[in-house]
Amino acid sequence: MHKLEERIDGVMGRLLEDYQGGRTVDEVKTFDLPDNDVLEIVLRSLQRIIFPGYFRNKAFKVYTVRNNISMLLEDVIYKLTKQIAIVLRYDPQYEHAPEQDVTERAEELTFAFLDQIPKIRDFIETDVQAAFDGDPAAYSKTEIIYSYPGLYAIMVNRIAHEFFLLGVPMIPRIMTELAHSKTGIDIHPGASIGRYFFIDHGTGIVIGETTEIGEHVRVYQGVTLGALSTRGGQSLRGKKRHPTIEDNVTIYSGASILGGETVVGHDAVIGGNAFITKSVPAGARVSIRQQELHFHFDDKQPAPAEKEDVEQDEAWFYVI
Amino acid sequence: MHKLEERIDGVMGRLLEDYQGGRTVDEVKTFDLPDNDVLEIVLRSLQRIIFPGYFRNKAFKVYTVRNNISMLLEDVIYKLTKQIAIVLRYDPQYEHAPEQDVTERAEELTFAFLDQIPKIRDFIETDVQAAFDGDPAAYSKTEIIYSYPGLYAIMVNRIAHEFFLLGVPMIPRIMTELAHSKTGIDIHPGASIGRYFFIDHGTGIVIGETTEIGEHVRVYQGVTLGALSTRGGQSLRGKKRHPTIEDNVTIYSGASILGGETVVGHDAVIGGNAFITKSVPAGARVSIRQQELHFHFDDKQPAPAEKEDVEQDEAWFYVI
Amino acid sequence: MHKLEERIDGVMGRLLEDYQGGRTVDEVKTFDLPDNDVLEIVLRSLQRIIFPGYFRNKAFKVYTVRNNISMLLEDVIYKLTKQIAIVLRYDPQYEHAPEQDVTERAEELTFAFLDQIPKIRDFIETDVQAAFDGDPAAYSKTEIIYSYPGLYAIMVNRIAHEFFLLGVPMIPRIMTELAHSKTGIDIHPGASIGRYFFIDHGTGIVIGETTEIGEHVRVYQGVTLGALSTRGGQSLRGKKRHPTIEDNVTIYSGASILGGETVVGHDAVIGGNAFITKSVPAGARVSIRQQELHFHFDDKQPAPAEKEDVEQDEAWFYVI
Repeated sequence: MHKLEERIDGVMGRLLEDYQGGRTVDEVKTFDLPDNDVLEIVLRSLQRIIFPGYFRNKAFKVYTVRNNISMLLEDVIYKLTKQIAIVLRYDPQYEHAPEQDVTERAEELTFAFLDQIPKIRDFIETDVQAAFDGDPAAYSKTEIIYSYPGLYAIMVNRIAHEFFLLGVPMIPRIMTELAHSKTGIDIHPGASIGRYFFIDHGTGIVIGETTEIGEHVRVYQGVTLGALSTRGGQSLRGKKRHPTIEDNVTIYSGASILGGETVVGHDAVIGGNAFITKSVPAGARVSIRQQELHFHFDDKQPAPAEKEDVEQDEAWFYVI
Repeated sequence: MHKLEERIDGVMGRLLEDYQGGRTVDEVKTFDLPDNDVLEIVLRSLQRIIFPGYFRNKAFKVYTVRNNISMLLEDVIYKLTKQIAIVLRYDPQYEHAPEQDVTERAEELTFAFLDQIPKIRDFIETDVQAAFDGDPAAYSKTEIIYSYPGLYAIMVNRIAHEFFLLGVPMIPRIMTELAHSKTGIDIHPGASIGRYFFIDHGTGIVIGETTEIGEHVRVYQGVTLGALSTRGGQSLRGKKRHPTIEDNVTIYSGASILGGETVVGHDAVIGGNAFITKSVPAGARVSIRQQELHFHFDDKQPAPAEKEDVEQDEAWFYVI
Repeated sequence: MHKLEERIDGVMGRLLEDYQGGRTVDEVKTFDLPDNDVLEIVLRSLQRIIFPGYFRNKAFKVYTVRNNISMLLEDVIYKLTKQIAIVLRYDPQYEHAPEQDVTERAEELTFAFLDQIPKIRDFIETDVQAAFDGDPAAYSKTEIIYSYPGLYAIMVNRIAHEFFLLGVPMIPRIMTELAHSKTGIDIHPGASIGRYFFIDHGTGIVIGETTEIGEHVRVYQGVTLGALSTRGGQSLRGKKRHPTIEDNVTIYSGASILGGETVVGHDAVIGGNAFITKSVPAGARVSIRQQELHFHFDDKQPAPAEKEDVEQDEAWFYVI
């Protein structure tokens, strides 16, 4: 036996032994697991179904939309039914159910979801409008539909939220995490969001599971709509832990609004970096009072691009 | 007819009806749309052309650089001309122009861009140097070129900015959004950035359309160079809404610098989390005055990893 | 000669001339470079080896785990050895070494890494547990393993950290940047992290090279564990520049903890947005003192969704 083979055998032996630990990492799922790659394809197909004139393989004449969409639709039905059948096994109610029941339930849920597409499209129409109205850097609605990460994140949330409402396990979260990975925007599928929602830039936004958002709300990068504390862990599951944002509220970048009893009243404006843990009355414009900024000047200014001359006394800079 | 087919037919019928709404989401573009996947390939080819010795298919001898690059270049020309011809239709000037005119203009724009590559390479050389000088965690320039998201984001901005200056619609923004998705760094193609620009970590950085940045500027994660307010929406388009940052400025993580009339003078240092909406004189070191921190101690310390004992009174923690 | 060919020739000529600049961007590496795509495949295979029952091609019976894993393992060994042999050339010690020595060393390093997999799995088991205990929105451990970006980022850090400890050049950083790109979580491979580490949401987190983290630590989105200043650049390389976080510490979103001498004592809780540059005693709960918030009300509230009526006097909003 060669030395390399021996070594491989040694590693394998230690691995196989390690797999016997009976821990979560050692578990061999007796059920199948959902397939993230397939769910990503489903999302892409749903995007095409939602925007039939934008995302397509090639230019097609109007009279072929039917064929195009029906092809996409059948594929989505096939894939979704299969994925939902897989995740249903993780629902205690279906854990031991006969295969046939699970398949039928998966089909039902798939069609229940598809029935919501017109509603989803109706909402997304308003989101496109809100982005166009809200962003001076937007040159056209086509550009928004085509390249705005905020719109993509909202679309995926609106899709995932319907699966969440239907009680489908895991798939909603997998979908929003795909969007999170692409956009840096982390909206839990449980969050319920009204029409005309506009996210600008968006990286770093976190919107928690029990957040409720009204219509015409705008949110900028780095905003957290979160819980006051999650130290309670699993014991808090299902409780309203995240804030309520009423209609026409604008929340500027870096602001945090925390707590399940916190309500931001309609037409309020929350300034950048504000840290809000109590309700805000309707119409209020809340800003952090002017930061006390400390200005310091050296006798001689640091010479450009020479690093050595500043490094010694740089430590003072942040010292509290 | 089977039940499943009936159901599919039902969904299709409702979808086709929904598509008749005459809304933006229902629009069937009479023009083609740009292809994000093709533009991603173009970016990858441009990266190879910019760094001929780093990003390549395999090791090749120096004397084959010509063949390698000319192959890449011809492919870029073909793809870019085609994509530009598509997006030109969204420019009112070319909306109804004869096909030939559009193609010729697309070719002109492609070559006008290619003529800028030496300038782009010249700038990127300085960015690599700035990253190496600025980051004690950098082990080599090769590592920076190969794995630093900040450098990638700057490269894409420098490419997209040239298309922006040439007035090419949509493509610049699609390119910077591809970089945004990969890196979490959101630089609008309109932003103009001087030599020796260094972004460290970078996630969450937002640099707005009308920002002007001098040479030897460093920016850390979570920094916003933004507008004071975008409530004006489309009416603000084209106005200078974002700040001017002069040479040798360093902006630490989480700082926001806002407003079109805000100028940060040369050699200034902006401390972490500072919120700046007025101009800062040259050479100033601005830091937020020591936050008033509140220290609280329990009589008994929370037992490690036991969540129950802290959850009751945790709510005080963030209370304003 | 056609006009197009002439133009291409012109661009080519200018490019080839530009490549003669003798700058970093002009360098043609005499060594091969590591292949990011291959390293991404290696990470995916390692994920399957770490979670043999979760990430797999299809359902397989328990008695085939051996075959499955050994197939993965041999592929990982082949790819890793090759990639490590490539990067070793960037280590001065192996720059001019005979091919055979490099290959042997690469094989040694590969097996030295593989021997750490049981340790890595042991740590990751605790991370899954910590995520489940810490997140009320987690419905199952399977969901965490399957869709939580925080867990993915920790897994990649634990893998990359072993390569870092073995002194393998470039590969550790390429791996953590792949995770950074996917998750927005930027953990340097040099950071050493104890058991039961939990990252929630995670976008914008930065954890520096010389950070040391104890057990049962939780970190939320936007947290920086950073250096006080990196103005010293390369002269600071290798020095302890980042903080030490002891056991059972929780760090809420947006907090920054900076400096190599800063120690956060065990059982401390750092509140959202706190800016810490000095050590914090064990058991302390540190929060920013209530921000002075400024509330402003218009005589009449802004009419919903009408942008024109607010844009004039909006500028006051952020004025310091």
